[in-house]
Amino acid sequence: MCGNKNQKERYLPSLASLDRVSCWALTEPDYGSDASSLSTIATKVSGGWILNGQKRWIGNSTFADVCVVFARNTQTNEINGFLVKKGSPGYSAKKIENKIGLRIVQNGDIILQNVFVPDEDRLSGINSFKDTAKVLAVSRIVVAWQPIGISMGVYDMCHRYLQERKQFGVPLASFQLCQEKLVRMLGNIQAMALMGWRLCKLYEAGKMTPGQASLAKAWNTLRARETVALGRELLGGNGIVADFLVAKAFCDLEPIYTYEGTYEVNSLVTGREVTGLASFKAPKRRSAL
Amino acid sequence: MCGNKNQKERYLPSLASLDRVSCWALTEPDYGSDASSLSTIATKVSGGWILNGQKRWIGNSTFADVCVVFARNTQTNEINGFLVKKGSPGYSAKKIENKIGLRIVQNGDIILQNVFVPDEDRLSGINSFKDTAKVLAVSRIVVAWQPIGISMGVYDMCHRYLQERKQFGVPLASFQLCQEKLVRMLGNIQAMALMGWRLCKLYEAGKMTPGQASLAKAWNTLRARETVALGRELLGGNGIVADFLVAKAFCDLEPIYTYEGTYEVNSLVTGREVTGLASFKAPKRRSAL
Amino acid sequence: MCGNKNQKERYLPSLASLDRVSCWALTEPDYGSDASSLSTIATKVSGGWILNGQKRWIGNSTFADVCVVFARNTQTNEINGFLVKKGSPGYSAKKIENKIGLRIVQNGDIILQNVFVPDEDRLSGINSFKDTAKVLAVSRIVVAWQPIGISMGVYDMCHRYLQERKQFGVPLASFQLCQEKLVRMLGNIQAMALMGWRLCKLYEAGKMTPGQASLAKAWNTLRARETVALGRELLGGNGIVADFLVAKAFCDLEPIYTYEGTYEVNSLVTGREVTGLASFKAPKRRSAL
Amino acid sequence: MCGNKNQKERYLPSLASLDRVSCWALTEPDYGSDASSLSTIATKVSGGWILNGQKRWIGNSTFADVCVVFARNTQTNEINGFLVKKGSPGYSAKKIENKIGLRIVQNGDIILQNVFVPDEDRLSGINSFKDTAKVLAVSRIVVAWQPIGISMGVYDMCHRYLQERKQFGVPLASFQLCQEKLVRMLGNIQAMALMGWRLCKLYEAGKMTPGQASLAKAWNTLRARETVALGRELLGGNGIVADFLVAKAFCDLEPIYTYEGTYEVNSLVTGREVTGLASFKAPKRRSAL
Repeated sequence: MCGNKNQKERYLPSLASLDRVSCWALTEPDYGSDASSLSTIATKVSGGWILNGQKRWIGNSTFADVCVVFARNTQTNEINGFLVKKGSPGYSAKKIENKIGLRIVQNGDIILQNVFVPDEDRLSGINSFKDTAKVLAVSRIVVAWQPIGISMGVYDMCHRYLQERKQFGVPLASFQLCQEKLVRMLGNIQAMALMGWRLCKLYEAGKMTPGQASLAKAWNTLRARETVALGRELLGGNGIVADFLVAKAFCDLEPIYTYEGTYEVNSLVTGREVTGLASFKAPKRRSAL
Repeated sequence: MCGNKNQKERYLPSLASLDRVSCWALTEPDYGSDASSLSTIATKVSGGWILNGQKRWIGNSTFADVCVVFARNTQTNEINGFLVKKGSPGYSAKKIENKIGLRIVQNGDIILQNVFVPDEDRLSGINSFKDTAKVLAVSRIVVAWQPIGISMGVYDMCHRYLQERKQFGVPLASFQLCQEKLVRMLGNIQAMALMGWRLCKLYEAGKMTPGQASLAKAWNTLRARETVALGRELLGGNGIVADFLVAKAFCDLEPIYTYEGTYEVNSLVTGREVTGLASFKAPKRRSAL
Repeated sequence: MCGNKNQKERYLPSLASLDRVSCWALTEPDYGSDASSLSTIATKVSGGWILNGQKRWIGNSTFADVCVVFARNTQTNEINGFLVKKGSPGYSAKKIENKIGLRIVQNGDIILQNVFVPDEDRLSGINSFKDTAKVLAVSRIVVAWQPIGISMGVYDMCHRYLQERKQFGVPLASFQLCQEKLVRMLGNIQAMALMGWRLCKLYEAGKMTPGQASLAKAWNTLRARETVALGRELLGGNGIVADFLVAKAFCDLEPIYTYEGTYEVNSLVTGREVTGLASFKAPKRRSAL
Repeated sequence: MCGNKNQKERYLPSLASLDRVSCWALTEPDYGSDASSLSTIATKVSGGWILNGQKRWIGNSTFADVCVVFARNTQTNEINGFLVKKGSPGYSAKKIENKIGLRIVQNGDIILQNVFVPDEDRLSGINSFKDTAKVLAVSRIVVAWQPIGISMGVYDMCHRYLQERKQFGVPLASFQLCQEKLVRMLGNIQAMALMGWRLCKLYEAGKMTPGQASLAKAWNTLRARETVALGRELLGGNGIVADFLVAKAFCDLEPIYTYEGTYEVNSLVTGREVTGLASFKAPKRRSAL
C-alpha cells in the first residue's frame, strides 16, 4: 500500500509465498493509544537513515525477516516508514512472556540502536501519520473479522456441548437459562458477520471511511466479548480448561478487544468522524466543580 | 394469508385503502406467552359459530371495523380464526388506560359473549395453532423493524443535541463519555438494520424460518432497548420530557420488547429450532437440591 | 445548613410543619452538569440585591412559598444564595409538562427579572460554589436512598406477581428465566441498601466525603435502573401499564438517575476524589489521531 | 462440622497446622450442578465400606493426605461421607491440565476402584445430601469473599497504573472513560464487601439461610466479573500479560464464578428459597408453541 514498485518486487512475492515473514512496528512502550506521538526517530544520513528508539507488542518481531518500522523524521517531524531487515546491526527483539491470550502470536519488545536503513528501504508512501492511519483502517477490517470466527467456533462447541452434556437427567439444552444464552450468542454472531460483510462491501466500492472500520472493529469485539463469556458460562467447569476450545477463545478475545486500537480509541475515531469533534485528549489543568 | 378468495375480496381493498380498520385478537388475560393454550371457544351452530371468551391487549379493538378472533373449536380442540364485525351483538371492547409507551396504539380488553359469526367469516386457513404461528413469524418481521426506526430517530436527535448543547464551554459531543455512547448507538443501529435486511432477504427467498424471525425480533429489541436508554442518558434532564422525542422512544420500546412474543419467548422459539428441544414449560413438581 | 439564626427562626418551623413549602433553584437552562458556571446574577443595591436570570427543572417552584436561588455575585464573581419569597415582583415560574417519570414532582422553569431580595434574605453560609457542593453532598444521601425504596416496591410486586400469575400451567416463578431475574433484583437491593446504610454511618460519624456521597448516588441508581428494568420484563404486558406500579417505577428511575448530578457527573466527582485529577472539562481544540 | 469427636481429634490438629492437607470430593464427571444425583457408591462390608466411582475437579486431590469422599450408600440410597487416606489401594488422582485460571489450585480427576474405608472413617454427620448442602452453605461464605479480595487487588493496581501511565501527555486517570470505569469498580467493591460482611453477621447470629449464602456468592461473583473485566480494559495491552496481576485476576474469576455452585445454580437455590418453587429441573417431553 505504501511501498514503491521496486520495494513491492523485492518483498511481496516471498511474503506471499510465506518464504519470508514480516512484522509491523508502530506501538511503543510509552505510545499505545497515542501512537501518533511516537518517539522513535529517523535521522537522515548519507545514503540512508539512522533509526533509534523502542517498539512494544510487535507480533512476529522475534523472527521476522523484515520489519516495517515507523519513526519520526527529525527534519520534518512527520512519521515515516522504514523496512528494517533481520540481522541489521543495532536491531534486537525480545519475546514478551506470560500472555493470557492469543498465545499463537509471539509479540516482542524491539530496541533500535543506531540502526542503518538504506534509502531504498524507506517506504515512499508513508509521509505522515495520516498515511499510517490509512493502513490501520484496512487492517481493522481484518480485525473486525477475527471476533466473528472465534465466536462461531465457540458457538459450534456450545451447541454440541449443550446437546451432549446432561444434568438433572436431560441435555443442558433443555434448560431455559442455557437456551437464552445460546440464542443471544447466535444473534450476536449473525450481527457481527453482517457488520463485517457490509464493511467489506463498502471497502470494495471505495467508500469505506476510517470511522466505519473503527466502528466495525470496536462494535464486533464488544459483542464477541459478551459472546465468548456466555460460551464460557455454558461449558461450566469444562469452560476453564483450554482443551474444550472455549476457555482459549475467551482469553484470545482480550488482546483482540484491545489491539489495533482499543475499544475506546476506535469508538472515539468513529465519534470524531460523526461529530466533527475530537475527544482523545484531556485538559492538562485541573477543573473545579 | 389465511383467508379464502371471497374473504379477501370482501375485506382487503377497504383495509388497504384505510377505509376500514382491522385488529388481531390472540392474547387473552390468562394466556400471553402461552398463547397456544387460549381458552376462548367457538362452538359450531347452524349456519355459523358462537364465540365466548376474553381477549386482552388487542390494538385497535375499540374502534376496528373487523376483528380477527382466535378461538378453540370445541369439536376439534384446535385453534380456528374468525372475522368478527364491529357491532356484532355480544362483542365489546374497553380501552386499556395508563400505558407508559406506544400510546399511539390503543389496546383494548375484549369480551365475547355468545357472539355469532356466520360460516363465511371463519378463516379457512387457520386450522391449528401452527397456522397462527405462521402469521406470527411474518408479523415478527415487521416488529423486528420497529426498534430500528425508533433507534434511528433517537440517534438523529442525540447527534444533533450533542452538537448544539454546550456544557463546560464546549458541545457535549466533545466529551468522551458522550461520544462512546453515541458510537455504541450507531453500531447497534447498523447491526439491527442489517439483521432486518437479511431477514427480509430470507423471507423473499422463501427460506425464512420461524426461529430466524424470532431471533431478529428478540435480538433487535434487546439492542434497541440499550440504544434508547443510551439516548435517554445523553439528553440529560431533557431526556425525561416527551417534547424531545427521546423520552417517548425510551418508553415506546418497552411494549415492543414484550409484545409479539416477549424477548424470552422469542429466544426460546429460536432455541427450540436450533437445539430441537423445547424449554417453554417448567416441571410441575418440586425438586430438591 | 447555610442560613443564619434569624433565617432559621423565620423559615424552618413552618417548613417543618409543612405549612410552607420551599424549593431549591440551582440548575439553569444552559448550566446543568456544569452548574458551577451558572449565569444568574445578583447585583448589590441599597438594602438588598437585584436578581436576574433563569432557572430550570426546579421542583415545587410553581407553588413554593420560598425559593432558594443561587446567583453569581457581580462584585465577587462567587456563587451566593438568596431566599426569594413567593409573589416577589419579577419572579415567575412555569410548570414543565410531559415528564415521563417522577410526575409527582412538579418542576418549573423560573424567570427572574429584577427581583429584589432584602439583605436579611441572603444566605450567609453560601459564599462560593464549594458551599453549594456541601449541600449537594448531603442531598445526595437522600437521593441514594430513593432507588432503594423504589426497587423494593418493584421487588415486592414482582415477587407476588410471579407466584400468582400462571403460564403453561404453573406460576411464573417456576421458570428459570424468571427466577434468575428476581434473584438478581434481590441481590441489587441488598447491596444498594447496604451502600445507603454505610453512607449514613459515615455521615453520622462526620467522615463522609463528597466522593462517597456521589458514588453511592451514582452506583445505586445504576443498579436500580437494572432492577426496575428486570421488574418491567417480569410483568410482561402488565409491566407497561402504570396500574401495576412497576411501569411507573421504571419511568421514575430515569429522572433519579439523572438529577442531583447525572450518573456521569457523580462518577467524575468520585473519580476526582480518588485520583486527584478532574476530568469534567474537555479540550477546546481539535486533536488529530 | 460433620465428623465425630474421634475424627476431629485424629485430623483437625494436623490440618490446622498444615502438617497435613485435605480435599473435598463431591463433584463427578457427570454430576456437577446436579451434584445430589452423584453416582459414586459405598457398599457396606464387614468392618467398613467399599467405594467405587469417579470424582472430577477435586482441588488438592493429587497430593492431599486425606480426602472427604461423598458417595451413595447402596442400602439407604442416601449420600454419605468418607475419609479416604492417601495411598489407599484403589484410589488414584490425576492432575487436570490447561486451566486458564486459579492455577494455584491443582484440581484432579479421582478414580475409586474398590477402595476400602474402615467404619471409623465414615463421617457420622453426613446422612443425606441435605447435610452436604449445609457444608456448601458455609463454604459459599468463603467463596463470596474471594471475588472481593481479587477485585480489591485489581483496583489497587489500576488506581496506581492510571496515575503513572501517561498517554496524550497526561495520566490515564485524566480521561473520562478511564475514571468512570475505575469508579464503577470502586462501587462494586464496596457493595461486595458489604454483602460479605452482612452475610458473616447473619452467620454469626445463627440466622444465615442457604439462599442468603448462595445469593452473596452468585451476586458477588457477577459483580466481580464485571470489575476484573473493567480492570483488564484499563490496563490496555499490559492487561494481557500476567506480570501486571490484572490479567491473572481476570482469568481467576472464571472458575470462581462457576465453582461452589455456578452462578445459575446459586441463583436458583436463592430463587427456590424466596418463591418456594424449585426450577432446577426441566421437563423431559417436548412442548409445542
